[in-house]
Amino acid sequence: MDLKSKRIAILAPVAWRTPPRAYGAWETVASNITEGLVARGWKDVTLFATKESVTAAKLVGWVERGYEEDKSQIPLVSTCLHISKVMERAHEFDLIHSNFDYLPLTYLPLIKTPMLTTIHGFSDPDILRVYREHKDTYYVSISNADRDKELPYLATVYNGIDLSNLTFRETPGDKLVHYGRIHNDKGTHLSIEVAKKCGIDLLIAGIIQDQNYFDTLIKPHLNDSSIQYIGPVNPTQRDALLKEAYAVIHLNLIPERFGLVMAESMAAGVPVIAMDLGSCREVIADNQTGYLVNNVAEAVEAVGRIDTIDRKNCRQRVEQNFTIDCMVSGYEKVYAEIFRREQAKKK
Amino acid sequence: MDLKSKRIAILAPVAWRTPPRAYGAWETVASNITEGLVARGWKDVTLFATKESVTAAKLVGWVERGYEEDKSQIPLVSTCLHISKVMERAHEFDLIHSNFDYLPLTYLPLIKTPMLTTIHGFSDPDILRVYREHKDTYYVSISNADRDKELPYLATVYNGIDLSNLTFRETPGDKLVHYGRIHNDKGTHLSIEVAKKCGIDLLIAGIIQDQNYFDTLIKPHLNDSSIQYIGPVNPTQRDALLKEAYAVIHLNLIPERFGLVMAESMAAGVPVIAMDLGSCREVIADNQTGYLVNNVAEAVEAVGRIDTIDRKNCRQRVEQNFTIDCMVSGYEKVYAEIFRREQAKKK
Repeated sequence: MDLKSKRIAILAPVAWRTPPRAYGAWETVASNITEGLVARGWKDVTLFATKESVTAAKLVGWVERGYEEDKSQIPLVSTCLHISKVMERAHEFDLIHSNFDYLPLTYLPLIKTPMLTTIHGFSDPDILRVYREHKDTYYVSISNADRDKELPYLATVYNGIDLSNLTFRETPGDKLVHYGRIHNDKGTHLSIEVAKKCGIDLLIAGIIQDQNYFDTLIKPHLNDSSIQYIGPVNPTQRDALLKEAYAVIHLNLIPERFGLVMAESMAAGVPVIAMDLGSCREVIADNQTGYLVNNVAEAVEAVGRIDTIDRKNCRQRVEQNFTIDCMVSGYEKVYAEIFRREQAKKK
Repeated sequence: MDLKSKRIAILAPVAWRTPPRAYGAWETVASNITEGLVARGWKDVTLFATKESVTAAKLVGWVERGYEEDKSQIPLVSTCLHISKVMERAHEFDLIHSNFDYLPLTYLPLIKTPMLTTIHGFSDPDILRVYREHKDTYYVSISNADRDKELPYLATVYNGIDLSNLTFRETPGDKLVHYGRIHNDKGTHLSIEVAKKCGIDLLIAGIIQDQNYFDTLIKPHLNDSSIQYIGPVNPTQRDALLKEAYAVIHLNLIPERFGLVMAESMAAGVPVIAMDLGSCREVIADNQTGYLVNNVAEAVEAVGRIDTIDRKNCRQRVEQNFTIDCMVSGYEKVYAEIFRREQAKKK
C-alpha cells in the first residue's frame, strides 16, 4: 500500500482551537503536522481537535471549544472525553499520532492501532512514571537534549516554524532584542545586564508570565530609551521587532526543549547569543549562526563578535532544518519506520 | 455458575490507603464493600488500591502510597496509571465495580467486562458530561435524592457504617451537638442560633474546612461553657461526644448526598434535626428518628419535641438500613441484576 494512503489520526490537545488564535504551542504543532501532511499529498488524514478547529484534513471533535477559551469546562473532563473518543475509533486508523502528553498512553494497552507520541516536554519529573510504564510504543523527541535516558525514541523531529511572517534582512538593526515569556527561566534580567555592559539599547517583548519577577527584576531598569518593554508581539509585530535587532539575547537558565525564539530570530537573519543549555546547541550552529555562552561575561564578549556572523547562514540554517516542511518530512520517515516495524511484528 | 464465585474487581481511588488511616470517604466505602463481600462468602474478590492497602481480598496495586499522603506524586499520573492497569486486566473479571468517579468510564468503550459505577457525588456539574456520554453502563446512586435525571440507575445503595464504635445509649445527654466539616454548607452557624434560642449548651466538633467562615461566623460565639468547639474527633471521641447529645443539629444548606453524620448519630440513639434538603428525608424517618425542618425557627420548635422520639427507633433504623451488611447485601442484588442483563444480551 502506498505510504501516503495510510489512515493517519492526528491527536491535538483541546486547550485551544487548532490552530490556536494566539497562544497554544502544542495545538500549533499539531496543526502544522496535519496541514503539512495534506500539503505533501497524504490522502487520509484526520485531525482530532476542538469542534471549531480549522483544517484541510478531516476534522473530528467532541469538545466545542478549548477549555482555556471556555472556563466553564473542567479541563480533565474535556481531555478524557476527547481522548476516549479517539481511542474508541482507533481501529479506523493505521496510526495515531498523539501530541497530547501522557494521558493517551494509558489507553494504549486496550487498542491495536500503533501510536506515535511526540513528547513536547516533561512538565514534571513525575509524569515520567507514565512514559516509562509504556516502552512498547513509539516516541519522538523535539530535540536530542530533551530526552529521558530510559525511553526508546525513534527519532528527534525538530519543530517546524512558519516562515511567511519572518522577513530575512541582510542589514542588521542597532539594538539588542530579548523576546519570549518574561520569566526567570528565560533570563530576561540577564539580557538587561548584557545590554548595559555593552552600552547597546535593548528591546524586550513577550507576555509577563511571572509578575513578581517582572516587578522586581525588570521594571526598575526600564526607561523610554535604552531599556524598553513593548509587551507581547503578534507575528507582524515580531517581524518589525526583529528588524531592529543586531542580535537576540537568549540567556535561558533552564535547558531549552526546542527554542522557537531562536529559530524565528535566525529565520529573520538575526544571530542569537544563547546559554549553552538543553537544545540551544542543536538549534544554533555555534560561531555560524550565533554564539553559545555560559554566563553574562561571555555573552558581552560574544556581542563584540556578532559582525563575523553571516546573516545568510542564519536564514539558511532555518530553511534547511526548522521549516514546517522539514518537520513533516521528518515525520514521514518516522511513520514509514513504524509501518515497517509493525509489518515485521506480523510476520 | 454460583453468584458468589463470580470474579469481582473493586476499584478504589488512590488518594489514600484503603481503608484510610483517617479521612478518605470513597476509600472507606470501597474497603467496606470489599471486606463485606469476602465476609459474606464471595470467593474471588480483588481490590485495586494503593500497594500498602489492607484487605482480606486479593490486593493489586501499582501506586505505592496515596497521593494525598505522598505529595511528590501528581494525582492524575497516579490516577490514570492505576485505572489503566485495572482496565488492562479487565478480561480477568466478570465485573468491575468502580468507586472512582468519572475517569474510568472513558476506558469503557475499549473493554468487554461490564462495569458498575457507584456515583459518590457530582463534584461539579461539568462532570455530568462524562456520565451522560456513557449511558450503556451500570450506575448506583448513594441516595434517591443524589441522582441526575438523565442517567439510568440500577438502584440506590445507601452507604453502610461500621457500628463497632457507636454505642447505643437509651438515656439522652443534655447538650445539642453539631459535628462534621465546619463549613457554611453544613450550617454550623445555624446550630449556634438554634442553641442560643433554645438556651441549651452546644458542642461543635469537626475539621475546619473554611477558616474564614470559622473565624467570622463561629469563633466570635465560642466560650468555655455554652458554645464550645472541641476540634476534630476520631471514632472513640465521636462516641464520647454522642453520649453528651440530647439531639444532633444538622442544618445543611446544600442538599446532602447521603449524610454519614445523621446515620452515625442515630446509631448512637441520638435523634437528628436536619434541613429537609437532599437525602436527609431518606436517612431520617421524620417524627420517628428526628425531624426535618426548613429553617432555624422550625429547628428550635423541633428541639422542644425531641422527647417524643423513641431512641430505640433511631438505632433500629440504622441497623435495618445503613450497616455495612445492608450495603453489601444491596450490592449483591445489583451484581445479580447486572449478570442477568449481561446474560440476556448474549442470547
